[in-house]
Amino acid sequence: MSILSAIPFTAVRLTDRFWAPKQRVNRERAIPANEEQCRKTGRIEAFKLQWKPGQPNQPHIFWDSDVAKWIEAASYSLHTHPDPALAARLETVIADIAASQQPDGYLNSHFTVVRPQERWKHFPDHELYCMGHMIEAGVAHHAATGSRSLLDVCIRLADCIDRDFGPKPGQRRGYCGHEEVELALVRLGRATGEQRYLDLARFMVDQRGAKPHYFDSLKPEEERGKEDYSYSQAHLPVRQQDRVVGHAVRAMYLYCAMTDVADERRDRGLERALGKLWDHTTGSLMYVTGGIGSSRHNEGFTFDRDLPNETAYCETCASVGLILWARRMHLRTGEAHYLDVLERSLYNAMLAGISLDGRKFFYENPLASLGGHHRQDWFGCSCCPPNISRLLASLGGYVASTGKGLLSLDLYAAGSFTAAVDGHEVGVAVTTDYPWDGRIALTLSPATPQIFRLRLRIPAWCVSWSVHVAGKVVKAKLVDGFAEIARTWSTGDRVELVLAMPAERIHADPRVRHDAGRVAIQRGPLLYCLEGCDNGADLDAVVLPDSARIAIKAQPRLLGSVITLHARGHREQPFAGGLYRTAAPAAKTVPLTFVPYYAWDNRKAGAMAVWVRCAR
Amino acid sequence: MSILSAIPFTAVRLTDRFWAPKQRVNRERAIPANEEQCRKTGRIEAFKLQWKPGQPNQPHIFWDSDVAKWIEAASYSLHTHPDPALAARLETVIADIAASQQPDGYLNSHFTVVRPQERWKHFPDHELYCMGHMIEAGVAHHAATGSRSLLDVCIRLADCIDRDFGPKPGQRRGYCGHEEVELALVRLGRATGEQRYLDLARFMVDQRGAKPHYFDSLKPEEERGKEDYSYSQAHLPVRQQDRVVGHAVRAMYLYCAMTDVADERRDRGLERALGKLWDHTTGSLMYVTGGIGSSRHNEGFTFDRDLPNETAYCETCASVGLILWARRMHLRTGEAHYLDVLERSLYNAMLAGISLDGRKFFYENPLASLGGHHRQDWFGCSCCPPNISRLLASLGGYVASTGKGLLSLDLYAAGSFTAAVDGHEVGVAVTTDYPWDGRIALTLSPATPQIFRLRLRIPAWCVSWSVHVAGKVVKAKLVDGFAEIARTWSTGDRVELVLAMPAERIHADPRVRHDAGRVAIQRGPLLYCLEGCDNGADLDAVVLPDSARIAIKAQPRLLGSVITLHARGHREQPFAGGLYRTAAPAAKTVPLTFVPYYAWDNRKAGAMAVWVRCAR
Repeated sequence: MSILSAIPFTAVRLTDRFWAPKQRVNRERAIPANEEQCRKTGRIEAFKLQWKPGQPNQPHIFWDSDVAKWIEAASYSLHTHPDPALAARLETVIADIAASQQPDGYLNSHFTVVRPQERWKHFPDHELYCMGHMIEAGVAHHAATGSRSLLDVCIRLADCIDRDFGPKPGQRRGYCGHEEVELALVRLGRATGEQRYLDLARFMVDQRGAKPHYFDSLKPEEERGKEDYSYSQAHLPVRQQDRVVGHAVRAMYLYCAMTDVADERRDRGLERALGKLWDHTTGSLMYVTGGIGSSRHNEGFTFDRDLPNETAYCETCASVGLILWARRMHLRTGEAHYLDVLERSLYNAMLAGISLDGRKFFYENPLASLGGHHRQDWFGCSCCPPNISRLLASLGGYVASTGKGLLSLDLYAAGSFTAAVDGHEVGVAVTTDYPWDGRIALTLSPATPQIFRLRLRIPAWCVSWSVHVAGKVVKAKLVDGFAEIARTWSTGDRVELVLAMPAERIHADPRVRHDAGRVAIQRGPLLYCLEGCDNGADLDAVVLPDSARIAIKAQPRLLGSVITLHARGHREQPFAGGLYRTAAPAAKTVPLTFVPYYAWDNRKAGAMAVWVRCAR
Repeated sequence: MSILSAIPFTAVRLTDRFWAPKQRVNRERAIPANEEQCRKTGRIEAFKLQWKPGQPNQPHIFWDSDVAKWIEAASYSLHTHPDPALAARLETVIADIAASQQPDGYLNSHFTVVRPQERWKHFPDHELYCMGHMIEAGVAHHAATGSRSLLDVCIRLADCIDRDFGPKPGQRRGYCGHEEVELALVRLGRATGEQRYLDLARFMVDQRGAKPHYFDSLKPEEERGKEDYSYSQAHLPVRQQDRVVGHAVRAMYLYCAMTDVADERRDRGLERALGKLWDHTTGSLMYVTGGIGSSRHNEGFTFDRDLPNETAYCETCASVGLILWARRMHLRTGEAHYLDVLERSLYNAMLAGISLDGRKFFYENPLASLGGHHRQDWFGCSCCPPNISRLLASLGGYVASTGKGLLSLDLYAAGSFTAAVDGHEVGVAVTTDYPWDGRIALTLSPATPQIFRLRLRIPAWCVSWSVHVAGKVVKAKLVDGFAEIARTWSTGDRVELVLAMPAERIHADPRVRHDAGRVAIQRGPLLYCLEGCDNGADLDAVVLPDSARIAIKAQPRLLGSVITLHARGHREQPFAGGLYRTAAPAAKTVPLTFVPYYAWDNRKAGAMAVWVRCAR
C-alpha cells in the first residue's frame, strides 16, 4: 500500500564530501572495530557452543544481535566495496552460526548453552529480538553478496518460529519483549515471497498487549496482572495505542513493524495508531537533535516535553529506529515531513553516535555536557555501534524513491543512481555540497524521453527556495513538502534546486522547561553546539544576544571539514566570593564558536551545549 | 574557648506572630503527630524487646533515634508549656527504655532483639547514632523537667560506650558511620561535668579516618581497603579534611562535634579544618534557601556549584544540622556571618520541612517542582519530623548570647528574655514584626545600671540600617557583622534598630548552571517562590523583567498571615504545533504572585519555582 518504493542502496553511489567519507570511515574503521570487538569479547566464539557453566565469557542474551548487525553492515559494505577477505571471514562466521542451529531450526547462542531448559519460557526479552537481527542479516547478506549461506539458516529459523508461535492450537500466542523480529519477518517475507512470514509478523503485532497477556502466562500465577508492560509497548493492543511509552528503541522497532504490516494490507486501525504515535513522538517527546528517549531510567520516554539536556539519554539506537520508522512512513504516504524528522535525527542525534575516526561510539547523546561524556570503544550491551554501521553502509537507500509516474529526491548528497520510473530506467547524477550548501544540481538521463513528476524535497527548515530547469527558473508546485515538476524529461536535462541556508535560531515551545530562554543554532539540517575547547567551561554563563549576527566560516581542516558558525556573545563573570548576591553578574563580550553537534567530543574533552541562553 | 554563650531557651519567651504560632503548632500538632507515629509504627513498643524473629514490625536500626528526638522535642515543650499528661507519658516510655537497657548499660532496641550477636560488629551505621540521640534526649529531658529518669539511663549508656571504645588495650578504636554520638557526648559531659565523656568525644573525632581504618577492621580481610568512606566523612583524618563530602546530615553532625571539641581545648588543626569546611559548604554547595546536599543518590554533596533545583535533595535534617553547626561557629567566634547562613536555612529550607498545620513533613526540599512533590505524614526513615520539632521547641536558644561585657542579639523575634551579662541579670523585651518588618525595638532592664556592649546583628541582606537609643540616632560601630553600642545601660533604656527590608532580586554565581539567567526573590530573611495555584503551570515559561517593580502586600488571612510580593511579568505562550520553530515565542503580560518559600505546598497542589527567568 506504500505510495513509494525506495531506490535500493545497491543502485546508489555516493561520492559527496559529507557522507561518502563517513561511509569510508565506516568501512575501514567502524565495521572492522565491530568485528574486532565481537571477536575479542567472545560474541563470535559463542556460536561454537563450547561454553560450559562456570566458565568466563558466558554468552549474553543479546550477544547474537551484535554479531548479526555486524554481518548486516559488513554485507552492505561488501556490495559497494567488494573485499574477498571480509567476505571469506563472514562465511566462516556464518558457518559457525549455521552449525549452532538446532535440528528444529532454533538459533540462539545464549539459550542453547546457558539456559537450554528455558527456551521460549523466559520473560521474552531478547530471544526473538536476536533472531530478528539474524534474519535481517541473512536477508542483507544474500541481497548484497548473492550468498544464501545465512539466508537459508534464517529461513529454517523463521520456520522454527512459525511452527512455535501463532494462533493454532499448541502454538504460543506470543511475541518478544524487545520488538525486532516482526519487522525482520516482514523483510524475510518480502525477500522470499513467503506469505507465512508476513502473516506471522502480523500475528505478533496483533497479539501484542492482548488479554490474557502473553507475558503474564509466562509467570507463576501469583505474579500475574501486576505489570502493565508499557516498557515493552505491550500495555494495550497496538491499535489502541496513541501515546509513545516505555523503552525508546523497542517503541521504534514496533512502529516500524506496524508500518510494514499496514503496508501489506489496508489496516485503518494500524494507520490511525501510527499517525497518533508519530505525532506524539515527534510533537511532544523529540529533542531538537532528533534524539528520543529522555530518561536513562527506562532508556525511554517520560512525559510530554520533559527533555532535559544534560541527562538526555537519546540512545543512538533510538535515533536509528526513528530513522527507520520515518523512512517507512514517508514511503507509505509520500509526505516530506517524515523526512524532516529523518534528516534531523540522521545528521545530528544518530551521527553524533560515532567518532570522526570511526572507532568510538556514543550510546547516550545528551545535548549538554559538563565535560564528562565521551565516546567509548565498545559497550557491555553494544547495540549502538553496529546499528550505526548498518545504517551508514546502507545510506544510499535513503536518497530517492519512485512511485507511479514519480521520481522523488529525498536526501541530498552528491552521487548518482539509477531509478526505475514506471519500468523505465532513469539515471540521475547529483552535484551538491549539501549539507554545507543549499544548491543541488541534478542531471537526468532517461533511456528515452519520458514523462514523470520529479519531486525535490523542500526541507522544513528552508523558507526560501527556487527551482531551475535548464538554467531557467520554473514555478514548481509544492506537493506534500516537495517541489514538483511534471514534464517530459530527456537525457541531459539539468535541474537546479537552490535552498536558502542561513544560520537560524531555533526556539523550543516554552513548556519545554529545560530550553526556556534559550536558542539552538541550526544551519540547513545541522544543529550546532558550543564546545568547551572553543568557548571555555561553564557554557550556561554564556549568552547569545538576539541581535548578534551569525557568521559562517568554511574550515576545511577542522573536524574532517566543517562550516563553523561565529557570533559575538557575552559571558557572565564568576562572583569573587559567595554564591549569591543582589548585583547582577558582570558580563564580558566574547567571541562564540559553534561547531556541528555531530562532530562534538572529537577534540579536547570539555563542556558542550546545544541550547544557549539568549537575550533580547 | 567560645567567645559567646547562648542564652538558653529556658530563659527566653517568644511572643511574636511568626515563631510563637509555629511553636504552638509544633506543640499542639507536630509533637503529638510524632508521638502518634512512633506508637503506631511500633517504634515505642520496640523498647519492650518483645519482637521475635519472623514477626512483623522488626525494630529498625534507626528507630530509637526517632523516639529519642520526639522525647527531646517534647521535653523542650514541657518546659515552656507544662503538660502533666505528656510528662507522664514520657516517663512511661522512659521506663520502657530503661527496662530495655542491658546490664552493662548497652541500649539499642534493634541490636538487642534483632542482631544481638552483632553488637559493635556491624558496619557501624546507626548504632552509636541512635545512642547519641538518646543521650541528647536524656540531657534535654533533665534540663527541661528536672527528672533524672532518662539522664541516668544515658549516663549508664555513655559509661558502656566509654568502656568499650577508646585508646586503651582491648577497647575499640572506633566511631560511628553516622556521626551524632560525638556531639551528644560533649553535651552530656558539659551537663554532668564528667570529663570522660568529653574525652571520648574527642577520641572519636580524632580517630575518624585514621589508618588502619576502623571500618575496614570490621570487614573480612578480602573486603578491606576498597571503600574510601567519604560518604561518612571518614576518608581522611578530620584535620586533613577541607572539602565537605558525602552524606549531608552526617557531615553537619560531624562538624558540630568538631566545633564542640575545638571549643573545649584550643586546637588549631580542628579550627583550620572547620574554617575550610565552612567556606566550602556555604560558598560552593549551599542553595539560596540554605538547603544543602543536592543529590538523592548519596543524600549529600556532589561537586562545586552543582545545585539542580528540581532534583535538589536538601534534606530537612541537613538544614537542621547546618543550623546547629552555624550556631556553634557563631558562638565560638562571635561573627555574624555564621548567623546569616543560620537564618537563611532556618526561615527557608528548614521551615519548609513542616506544613503550616504541623501535620505533614518534607524530607526533601527542592527549589522547583512540576507539582508532584508533597509533604507526607511520616516516613519509613523518619528522621526529619522530630528533628524539626526539637529545633522549633528550643528556638528560644537562638535569640541571644552573652560574652565578656557583651550582650548579643542574634535572631530577632518579639518576646523577652533574661541574660546574665558579667554575672548580672539583664532583662530584655523585644518588640518587632520581624521577619515581615525590619523595625526592632528593645527595652533593657538591668538590675542596676551596667556597662556592656550591646550587639545587634545586621543581616547580610540588609544594606541600610540605623540604630536609635532613646529615640535618637546613634552612630554604632559595625563589629563582626553587629552594630555595637557600648554604654551604661539603665532600666527602661530603649533601643531601636531599623533594617531596610525591600524585596530584592538575588543572582547566583553564573557558574551555578541551573540558576543562570534567573533571579530569586528575597525580602528580609525570606526567600519567595512562584506557585502554580497563583501563577499557573509551566513556571519556566514565566519571565520577570529586571525593570518590574515588586510590590508588597500584607495578607493576614493567607497561609497563616504572610506578606506576598507582586510584579508584572510575562508568560511565553505555547506553540500551536510542534516543539521547535525559528520564531521566538509570543509573550503575554501576566501578574506574578510570590509567596514565602517556607509556605509552599500548603494550598492546591501544583508547580513551584524559586529561581525565575529574568530579562534585561
